[in-house]
Amino acid sequence: MKEPIYAVGLGPGDPELLTLKAVRILKEVDYILVSSSNKLNTFSAMEDILTILKFIDCDKKIKVIEMPPSEKGMPHFTPERRKLFLDKVLEHYDGKRKLALITMGDISIYSSFSDAFSYFLEKGIEHIGINGFPSFIAPATLNGLTLAEFKGGVSIMGCPESAEEIDEALKHNTTVVLMKINDDGKVLRDYMNRFTQDIATCVYRAYLGGQRIYDLKKEFPEGIDFFMTVVLIRKSK
Amino acid sequence: MKEPIYAVGLGPGDPELLTLKAVRILKEVDYILVSSSNKLNTFSAMEDILTILKFIDCDKKIKVIEMPPSEKGMPHFTPERRKLFLDKVLEHYDGKRKLALITMGDISIYSSFSDAFSYFLEKGIEHIGINGFPSFIAPATLNGLTLAEFKGGVSIMGCPESAEEIDEALKHNTTVVLMKINDDGKVLRDYMNRFTQDIATCVYRAYLGGQRIYDLKKEFPEGIDFFMTVVLIRKSK
Repeated sequence: MKEPIYAVGLGPGDPELLTLKAVRILKEVDYILVSSSNKLNTFSAMEDILTILKFIDCDKKIKVIEMPPSEKGMPHFTPERRKLFLDKVLEHYDGKRKLALITMGDISIYSSFSDAFSYFLEKGIEHIGINGFPSFIAPATLNGLTLAEFKGGVSIMGCPESAEEIDEALKHNTTVVLMKINDDGKVLRDYMNRFTQDIATCVYRAYLGGQRIYDLKKEFPEGIDFFMTVVLIRKSK
Repeated sequence: MKEPIYAVGLGPGDPELLTLKAVRILKEVDYILVSSSNKLNTFSAMEDILTILKFIDCDKKIKVIEMPPSEKGMPHFTPERRKLFLDKVLEHYDGKRKLALITMGDISIYSSFSDAFSYFLEKGIEHIGINGFPSFIAPATLNGLTLAEFKGGVSIMGCPESAEEIDEALKHNTTVVLMKINDDGKVLRDYMNRFTQDIATCVYRAYLGGQRIYDLKKEFPEGIDFFMTVVLIRKSK
């Protein structure tokens, strides 16, 4: 029987938010494969990954997959570069070694694992997903708020394209959570300037070193990487 | 210094989805307080709770808070009964004992902890929330799906009031997740009869004994407690 490839969510950053299952799998595998791209990002995910894996004494198993630098002005995570990464992952796969790919947060939301899953399926390699605590709950928990009460939905959005898109979502949901903001906070700033809301809070680097919590109604963050924030907005009644 | 009261999420049911932090806190506390109401429900949450706590050798710490049976035909979880439960919890609180309240799933979404938090705040008692892996990710993970890709939001809804409400949410989001369905599946059945979608799946008792996964486009579940299901619907492109 061939070994599967494990895809493991590490949770939002606090090593204690690892699940027992993630810890067991990471202790069982031979290699934990990480793209060298994690070193290039402004948010140096590699350091955060190392902190988490050190906590459970698994940092020695990391194998860095060296990726060529992306061309100047070109986006870093293109489908072609993802495929290059996955091909390099498969060079380590022989059906006997136990391999784990990892991601911060959970594997099932805004993670890069969906293309990996299709690719492995195409190659006939079994993969098993191991959930991690999702990052988008951070601004609720860290502010002592609930994400949702019994009536009233939650909408989780990737980077919205306009302030109106956020406002529209708040017509149908009590709470909106924004993640993966890649426009430097432009739409969020516009939304805060033009609309009213009960609560608007954002957490930068939740559960990680350098964590900061902002009340957006009082202060709009400057000089942070918005890609590393999670925003919670609750509508005016 | 007085001890806080811990509010701990146990995750969706698989004991291995407990976080390291939840395990640490549950091992540290003196008592784990559970309402006897958990025995009355059709889904016998008490058994599931016991399974999880036995796994980490904490089942001996359970203290059952005896609740009077609810009046015939009256809803079981009224604000008055919740307050009765919290008052009985506080009988065990002396500032020295470490107490934990627990819930399945996470504490921050559709849990009963928001009223507990306000009540403790009112009484000047510190509480600390310890997250659990949220149940609503189950139908994605258990079906090998992602909850959301980079573009395209997710809307998590409590029991919707009409099929149109689900359809409307799918105009603004790629994925809709339904939880806490308390109408015996009436609205969901109506939605499935009148609208089209790419994927519609529901998981009954996710990660618990008796788990069942349904493809709603092929089979609509009969004779199950819909309150114990999580539904994932993805729109037609």
